[in-house]
Amino acid sequence: MKKTIAVDMDGVLADVFSQFALYHQKEFGVLYTPEDKMGISELDSFPNIHQYIHSVGFFRNVGIMPNAVEVLSKLNEKHQVYIVSAAIEFPLSLNEKLEWLQEYFPFITWKQIVFCGSKQIIKADIMIDDHFKNLDYFEGQSILFTQPHNALFDNGKHIRVHSWLEIEKILNVQ
Amino acid sequence: MKKTIAVDMDGVLADVFSQFALYHQKEFGVLYTPEDKMGISELDSFPNIHQYIHSVGFFRNVGIMPNAVEVLSKLNEKHQVYIVSAAIEFPLSLNEKLEWLQEYFPFITWKQIVFCGSKQIIKADIMIDDHFKNLDYFEGQSILFTQPHNALFDNGKHIRVHSWLEIEKILNVQ
Repeated sequence: MKKTIAVDMDGVLADVFSQFALYHQKEFGVLYTPEDKMGISELDSFPNIHQYIHSVGFFRNVGIMPNAVEVLSKLNEKHQVYIVSAAIEFPLSLNEKLEWLQEYFPFITWKQIVFCGSKQIIKADIMIDDHFKNLDYFEGQSILFTQPHNALFDNGKHIRVHSWLEIEKILNVQ
Repeated sequence: MKKTIAVDMDGVLADVFSQFALYHQKEFGVLYTPEDKMGISELDSFPNIHQYIHSVGFFRNVGIMPNAVEVLSKLNEKHQVYIVSAAIEFPLSLNEKLEWLQEYFPFITWKQIVFCGSKQIIKADIMIDDHFKNLDYFEGQSILFTQPHNALFDNGKHIRVHSWLEIEKILNVQ
């Protein structure tokens, strides 16, 4: 059966951790790995995170999570996929995010993109996200994508995945 | 009881008809009124509409529908209001729409704004919109805001209102 799937950008499609780490390294000379920051919030890991997020090019040049393109492409053939990003807080990011999606995920059309402030208004069967604040209010099947900031926490409400290959398996689109 | 209300921008908060008419007048020298265009689609009314929509300043300088500010302000005090605009098709409009909302509806925070392609992913109790294509798939209470393009059609599925004062009355926030 065709399902509606809401897929987050930052920390799920886009490797923002590595981008934060690079910006932090440029500023402080130390390159952190995900292992260094397990269980630590993004803000505590990278104190100048707001500065990075508000700088031109941050979202346009962020890397892609491994296997995200091929697995999302398969999901998109079988299901109704929406990319749902809480991007309204960062107005500069809106056009950068659109361009980024267009470049790396050209099979996603403008009709499938949602930029919001809160995700409480989103209706879907499945939500894939790396933040509890988005998944906890969601009424459908919730999939928590592992990122350092959420790695040591579990409230028993969500299915945890560590990679897009796991999503491929769980959602049966191999 | 607090309800979640999804409010459209173009044709509901923003008087895009008058803006289309002004742009058309500048090009062709004829100023149409709403009465001239009853039952006619926006594209048939203004053949160069796509050009207007894609030009810098169109959405930043659009007028406000009468009484929209005061009634939305009251709704916002009593209910959970979201502004939901199908704006992703027009990337140029995103920042203009944010600035416009910030100027005229400063009580609406970034957390309450949603830009999407399709509104089929929106979950709310009430949706106020001027397009059947958005309301027809909506599962909650749907309110059709009269605009020339929808004025002569009725599929019996929605409550029709002609003004924000009517919304004030129907949703009981006088």
